[in-house]
This record gives sequence, C-alpha cells and structure tokens, in this order.
Amino acid sequence: MTYQTTPSTYDHIVGDIDSDGVTPTTGSVDFTEALELDNGSKLSPFTIAYNTYGTLNADKSNAILVCHALTGDQHVANRHPLTGKEGWWSMLVGPGKPIDTDRFFVICTNILGSCLGSTGPASINPETGSPYGLSFPVITIGDMVNAQARLIDHLGIDQLFSVMGGSMGGMQVLEWAVRHKDRAFSVVPIATAAWHSSQNIAFHEVGRQAVMADPNWMRGDYLNHGVVPRNGLAVARMAAHITYLSEDALHEKFGRNLQNRSDMTFSFDADFQVESYLRHQGSTFVDRFDANSYLYITRAMDYFDLGAEHGDILAEAFRGTQSRFCIVSFTSDWLYPTRESREIVQALNAVAANVSFVEIDSNAGHDAFLLDEPKFFETMTGFINSCAQQRGLPAA
Amino acid sequence: MTYQTTPSTYDHIVGDIDSDGVTPTTGSVDFTEALELDNGSKLSPFTIAYNTYGTLNADKSNAILVCHALTGDQHVANRHPLTGKEGWWSMLVGPGKPIDTDRFFVICTNILGSCLGSTGPASINPETGSPYGLSFPVITIGDMVNAQARLIDHLGIDQLFSVMGGSMGGMQVLEWAVRHKDRAFSVVPIATAAWHSSQNIAFHEVGRQAVMADPNWMRGDYLNHGVVPRNGLAVARMAAHITYLSEDALHEKFGRNLQNRSDMTFSFDADFQVESYLRHQGSTFVDRFDANSYLYITRAMDYFDLGAEHGDILAEAFRGTQSRFCIVSFTSDWLYPTRESREIVQALNAVAANVSFVEIDSNAGHDAFLLDEPKFFETMTGFINSCAQQRGLPAA
Repeated sequence: MTYQTTPSTYDHIVGDIDSDGVTPTTGSVDFTEALELDNGSKLSPFTIAYNTYGTLNADKSNAILVCHALTGDQHVANRHPLTGKEGWWSMLVGPGKPIDTDRFFVICTNILGSCLGSTGPASINPETGSPYGLSFPVITIGDMVNAQARLIDHLGIDQLFSVMGGSMGGMQVLEWAVRHKDRAFSVVPIATAAWHSSQNIAFHEVGRQAVMADPNWMRGDYLNHGVVPRNGLAVARMAAHITYLSEDALHEKFGRNLQNRSDMTFSFDADFQVESYLRHQGSTFVDRFDANSYLYITRAMDYFDLGAEHGDILAEAFRGTQSRFCIVSFTSDWLYPTRESREIVQALNAVAANVSFVEIDSNAGHDAFLLDEPKFFETMTGFINSCAQQRGLPAA
Repeated sequence: MTYQTTPSTYDHIVGDIDSDGVTPTTGSVDFTEALELDNGSKLSPFTIAYNTYGTLNADKSNAILVCHALTGDQHVANRHPLTGKEGWWSMLVGPGKPIDTDRFFVICTNILGSCLGSTGPASINPETGSPYGLSFPVITIGDMVNAQARLIDHLGIDQLFSVMGGSMGGMQVLEWAVRHKDRAFSVVPIATAAWHSSQNIAFHEVGRQAVMADPNWMRGDYLNHGVVPRNGLAVARMAAHITYLSEDALHEKFGRNLQNRSDMTFSFDADFQVESYLRHQGSTFVDRFDANSYLYITRAMDYFDLGAEHGDILAEAFRGTQSRFCIVSFTSDWLYPTRESREIVQALNAVAANVSFVEIDSNAGHDAFLLDEPKFFETMTGFINSCAQQRGLPAA
C-alpha cells in the first residue's frame, strides 16, 4: 500500500482547495491488493481519494463516514476546487453543525468509479497506459462500499460511529449495514431506497443513451481522441435534474416566467427561465464530470437491489444487525418516495432492528436532502446526539 | 382553394391505408388564403390532411372533431399506414363504439406543424423549393386550431357537435372552446391542462436539446443533407415516454425484470426489460416522425397558456361559452395531474358554464386516455348520448 495516486484526468485539480469553508485534510490511498468485484473480476491497483474534517479521537470511536450521491464527491464541507461552490453538505457538516466536526472525525471518499481522484473509467489502466474507458469493470454499490471499507481499514478504524448519506449515498449506507454489519454503530440512509425502481432505471437509461448518442463519446474512448461528449452528457444531466426537483419546487422557482424578456420570442431560444436554468445545469456539469463515470455510476445504481441476494426478502439482508438506523425521507421526493423508505423500515422491523423513521415535510423534491431543511437538521442532530450518548461519546 | 397537397416528406405514404380497421375517407385541402399566425406572420399556402369516418347528416349537425396529441395523427380508427398499428383511438372510435361512426361524422386533421400530410417544417417552402426546416414559423396551439377551423369551414360545417381530444389534443379542444365559442356544441378536453407547467416545459426542453445536440440535425437543415437526427430524436422520445406512464404502470409492466437473460451482464446492454422497451420506443418513433415537427409541436405546447390573453384569469377566457364541457382526468397522470383539470373546472364554474368533471381511477398514467379504460369509455358514451339528446340527434 502506498500513498501515490493513480493518475486520473481530474487529478491535477484535486488539492487546489480554497479554504473559505471548513479546511479539510485531503488524501488518497493507492491500494495494490486487488479489490474483488461483484462481477467476479478483480481491480488492482485502485485509488481512493478522500477528505477528512475534524480529529479522530484516541479510541477511534468518533468517525462518521459520509457517502456522496451520483455526481457528488469528497468535498462535503469545503469550497469545491472545480466549481468554487460551497461543499455539498456545508449546511450539515462543520464546527457546531449537526454533523459537528468539533466532535466528530468526518470522512468522505470519492467513490470508486467516479472522477475526482478515485479510480474510475477516466483513470489510466496500468496494463495499457491509456484511460480505462469501457474496459473499466462494471461496478456495484457494494463494490464502492468494499473499496471504502479498505480505506477505513487503512485509517485503522474498526467501527464507524455512523455512516450517512442521501440518494446513492443512502444506498452505500445500506450496503454498509448489510455487508459490514459490525462496522457501523449507526447508519442514516436518507432519501433513498433498497432497490432501484423501473422508472429510475428508465431515466438513467435515457441519460446513458444521450451520452452514447454523442459522436464524441466514441464508444467510450473519447479521452484518447482528445474530445468530450459534452452535448450528450449535458442532455443526460438536464433529464436527471428534473427528477431531483418536485413539480411544486419547479413551479415556485420558475412558473412560466420568461428569461430576461417581456414576451415570447416564437423561437427555440430559452424563452422560459426553467429552460435557461436547465441548460445551465447541463453545461456546467460537463466541466466537472467524466461522461463514462456517469455511465458506470448510473449502472451501479440500476443494479442496486439489496434484497436480491437474500431471496428477495429484504429483512433477511438486515438479519443480525446491531446498528441503530435512522431512515429519512421527504414528502415531495418522487425519485425515492417515502413508500420506498417505509419498505426499509418494515424490513428492519421484521428483524427487530433499532430503527427510527422520519418523513420530513418539504416541497423541494429529492434535492431536499442537500438543502436548508431545518426539520431535517433537527432530526440529524437528535439522532446523532442520542447515538453519541449510547456510544459513550461526550455530549455536544 | 384547391385539393392539391403541398408536398411533404411523409406525404407519399399517406393513403396507403390497410382497411383492417374502419375505412376512413382520406383527404387534404390546400388553402391558398393565408393563415394569420399568433406570432404575427402569415402562412400561405398551407395544407391540412385529414381522415373522416361515417357520414355527415343533412343538417351537418353530427360532426365530431377529434384532435390528436403531440405525436399522433389523423389515423384515429384505421390501421396506420406507416406503423401498421391499429388507429390510436380504435377502441373509442368506430361503429357501435363510444364515438359511434354509425351515428357521427368523425373528422381528424393532422395538425399544422406535423408531418403526416399537413404543412409543417418538413414541407416544401414554395418560396425556396426546399423544406422549411427552421424557416417554418413557430406556431401555437391556437394556430393549429385556426387551421382546423378553415377545414371545418371548407366542409361546410357551422357548428361541430363535439370537439374531443387528450393531452395536446385537449389543449386544442380548449382553444376551440375559447377562440371559436359558437362552433362547438360540446367539448371534451381529456388528460390536459390550461397551461403547460414548468416541469413539462423542462421535459420538452430536454427532448429538444437532445435533437439539437445530434450533429445530423444540422441546425434543422437535415433534409437538405439527406440525413436524419435519429439518435437525438430517439433520446427525446425515450425521455418523453417515461412521462406518459405512471411509476406503478412501469413497475407492474417491467419491475426489475431482466430482458431475455437470467442474470445481469455487468455491461451497458439493455439488461432490464424497461431499457429494452424504451430503446424500442425511441427507435421506432424516428421512422414515423419528423424531428423538426417534434421541436415545433413541443414548443407550441410550452407556449400554451389559455388564461394569458385574458389577464391571467382563466375564467375570462371561457366567459360567454354556451358549450357543454366534459373534463376528464386520470388519477395516475402526473404529466397533466387532476388538479390541473380542476383548475379548468373551477374557471368554468366561475362563469356558470355547463360542465361535467370525471376523474377516472387508473394506474396507467397519462397514456390512460389511449388505453382500454372501461370507466372512461362509459363516461364518453354517457356524455355523448346526453349531448346528442340535447342537440336533437337520434338516440343510439
């Protein structure tokens, strides 16, 4: 095991972090021992890039692993080196915040398959000296979690105080609870589900087809040709972005308001603010994200089905768990609606697990887990403090 | 006014109709008197292609105009000349059916802007001798309806017994009720809304961007280059198709079922049936539809806002109406949810219009209006018979 990073397209930018937010410790570990993947193959070497915030206590009992969503990354609470934006969970993570970096050692890894320093399809395949592209193995959420576990081993942490995350982050949280049962004192899956619905698979497939339809995708080999499938990836992002918001949120934000004009132009310009907003979402995304990573990560989400390996009985996946669960959903989230959180709760109840469930009233849609939702923050604070007490950690 | 058709890319196929369904009378009228468009310009000449079924009675009081949706056409009740499929409303229109062609003279026009015989962006611009492409004017739902009205004039019909249609067809129905108040004895807007929501604009914008991102689109000039933006249009169709179904319908139809295989392939093949289904929807669509028509018609829908010209007070749009209204929505339609139908009902109530409102319990999503929904058929039969009695037409 060394501390060198396998080169990746986006590597040069990592580390160039403005410290306006919380200053993280950034790191990356290059693992030479192969990772056994769910598809039966082995990946070696692989790198996991990560940020940490706060200080690990002497008995290493105050570590919280935060898991990011599809297009997220390790920059949870610091200004993003590429976009210059606040960390994606800055409201939740920091000194005195619900995930209090004065009390907890917060870790966030860039997931396997992504493009911000961890190994993914844009990384150099050491066997060829070229980017993996489509020769990168199709990975699963379980693979991502097993790779994270290797980092947690590396940090010398036996049991995480908590594993937390929303959306695909929540899927990782659930895999931690199932695959590494004794390694998480508590788990908080937020705005997520135990399996990916056909509607969600369908939206992902549209995004992938948009990327693959772009001639610059070049069957995944675009990096070797010095091009990027910008248009396809932008369309994919636009389609996905709609699913992250509720209809009410879109209506309140944009309604049918026109964009910097007093009347319709009778053209294909972005007459409506919502069009302009979506185009902006699409075009900025391609500057920070690798198109093949988008394909691989959406695929991993589609494959996610926590009960499948347990005879399609979700409760069996959780049997024997000692973790404390806090399941959180949002009323207007139509991507991972509350009923899918309830399925998790019911499965946990069936095996007499320790579970809290909170449905937060919000009209922000799926993205609510990233936004200023005081009731959500209260829930997190309450659950964390209760678990800290049970774990014998100092009170806030 | 002549009976010649302005040539259109898709014209050669119209008329090649298998008579397995109801045999229609097909026609098209070439109007030389200009159509004044909402954008202030004039379109001349323009052609409206149409099918009719049944016989117009002596006093021309039994005509029903059926309005088609975004990608529909005039082949309501006969086998489609391009796809070989049953007419899109064959279950509803025909001898002895709810819209009974033994009693009524049913007319359906291919809308202005479409590509099945009526003038649209694929038609030849007589000024240049080339297809219009993006030189075709941006039209509105109102323009489509005004063009239909010219055909109704041509057929010598003063007042239609009814105007009916779902989705964008319902928008046309509403425009008939507002712009041609004395020309529809009854109107049936189904699964529609009085204005296009920001979420719906957003989905359309994704589709348009997908088309425009296809290099074969060539800024709308693809017909002059002998190519078709197949990939972009297929992605647009895939994205739209998801919105036509409910999550429940997708789940019941596909769940997470695999496509002709027993296990996941760990690849980007269409592992899941829902992926295979969507790809099929995308690829078959491009064989029957013009990409620029898709842009123009989605734009017309985005611009649709019935109250906008009446001080944003929808009721004012309907003031003075004598038509009998039957508003129909479906419980699982999230594209045009019931609350948007209720807005229409409330506006009609505010001006003491004659209105029935029926919400049909269905889990089929927006597409329910095209499917076998017995309660919907009963509603249609009941409303039509009641109106027929009021109009003094023979009973069934």
